Amino acid sequence: MKQAVCLLSGGLDSTTSLAIAQASGFEVYALSFRYGQRHTIELEKAADFALARGVKRHVTLDIDLRAFGGSALTDDIAVPKPGDEKAMSTDNIPVTYVPARNTIFLSFAMGWAEALGAKHIFIGVNAQDYSGYPDCRPAFLEAFERLAQVATKAGVTEAGQALQIHAPLIDMSKADIVARGTALGVDFAETSSCYDPDAQGKPCQACDACLLRAKGFREAGVVDPLLLKFGLTT
Amino acid sequence: MKQAVCLLSGGLDSTTSLAIAQASGFEVYALSFRYGQRHTIELEKAADFALARGVKRHVTLDIDLRAFGGSALTDDIAVPKPGDEKAMSTDNIPVTYVPARNTIFLSFAMGWAEALGAKHIFIGVNAQDYSGYPDCRPAFLEAFERLAQVATKAGVTEAGQALQIHAPLIDMSKADIVARGTALGVDFAETSSCYDPDAQGKPCQACDACLLRAKGFREAGVVDPLLLKFGLTT
Repeated sequence: MKQAVCLLSGGLDSTTSLAIAQASGFEVYALSFRYGQRHTIELEKAADFALARGVKRHVTLDIDLRAFGGSALTDDIAVPKPGDEKAMSTDNIPVTYVPARNTIFLSFAMGWAEALGAKHIFIGVNAQDYSGYPDCRPAFLEAFERLAQVATKAGVTEAGQALQIHAPLIDMSKADIVARGTALGVDFAETSSCYDPDAQGKPCQACDACLLRAKGFREAGVVDPLLLKFGLTT
Repeated sequence: MKQAVCLLSGGLDSTTSLAIAQASGFEVYALSFRYGQRHTIELEKAADFALARGVKRHVTLDIDLRAFGGSALTDDIAVPKPGDEKAMSTDNIPVTYVPARNTIFLSFAMGWAEALGAKHIFIGVNAQDYSGYPDCRPAFLEAFERLAQVATKAGVTEAGQALQIHAPLIDMSKADIVARGTALGVDFAETSSCYDPDAQGKPCQACDACLLRAKGFREAGVVDPLLLKFGLTT
């Protein structure tokens, strides 16, 4: 059985990406990060999801991206709400962007893949709804794959591709993702997308991530079970 | 003053690389990692060195590469001595190779550089004495620089190069490095290169790293002050 390392944040995208890896026949090693994010409910969701889906192993690594700062997700910068002047930095990139986050995540995934002898990594980024993050674009994923080719033992000693980065959601809209995840049995009531949830995981329904999620469910014609769980309406 | 993030392990190479960055006029932000290495004397040396050189800031990040395994430097695999059958894995790459280590280190350095607005990273790898590690080769550094071009805000919003990876030791022999570091006032008595030192930092004089260091000092015609400090001879 082919092995894959799947990045798992506990949100809509990464859970669906992992479910796609399993549906494609991969034995999954799930990888999450406690990176100094302001809320950790998504990590509880990630752990529950990994267990529920019967992955081979789930590892949550501690890495402290707060040491560097530069993001509303890790700093004491307020998470922006619609209409906030501060939602975008001057260069039109959201303040919720965390410098180098996906590069760091993929680097660890590459390390684990190499230790396992796995040739596949799944990451749940999508370009259509990427919200302006530089490290959610196809060009970024291609550059990382080229890096992996020279950065690993397999790239040096074996012919062919050292490591394949799968981003099965890359061309999907949030509506596509909702539909695909639902079809694969992902329990979206037990996922967390909000940048600013309460301690129980109740979404704020106002941040970019909540709005994008709501739009996805609306366009997919599906009621978000997370809202039902908290007695919320769209 | 131009800013640079300098990777600093506390060994011969990274201390010399940092000294070169300073001599080139950069304001230095030094970055070290507690990554599950079996000995931490090198981290004490890194902190002392950063202080002695008056860097702008020194950050030591905790990342646990032991979670994945796959290396004699982080696992309970014996560090090989010359003549050991196990010194090389079957594919001729040393067992002391840590999967994805330099990729992970550079990814964090990129994140810090981006948060600072710095455009330069220094890493003390050298190709001549690289001991077979895939991630110490020029091709790897070039691939990382190309990745940085698309992975960061600067790569998206600005013309020109997002980030420059400097590897000033890349074409040097260990003898060259010893000579250059000595000329720049690096106190090599307070560096640690050994894979298996005792708690006081006394080198084993038998591992690959010790042998390479000894060869470098011998060829540079310099007595290693670290040996003098411990009353050792070559």
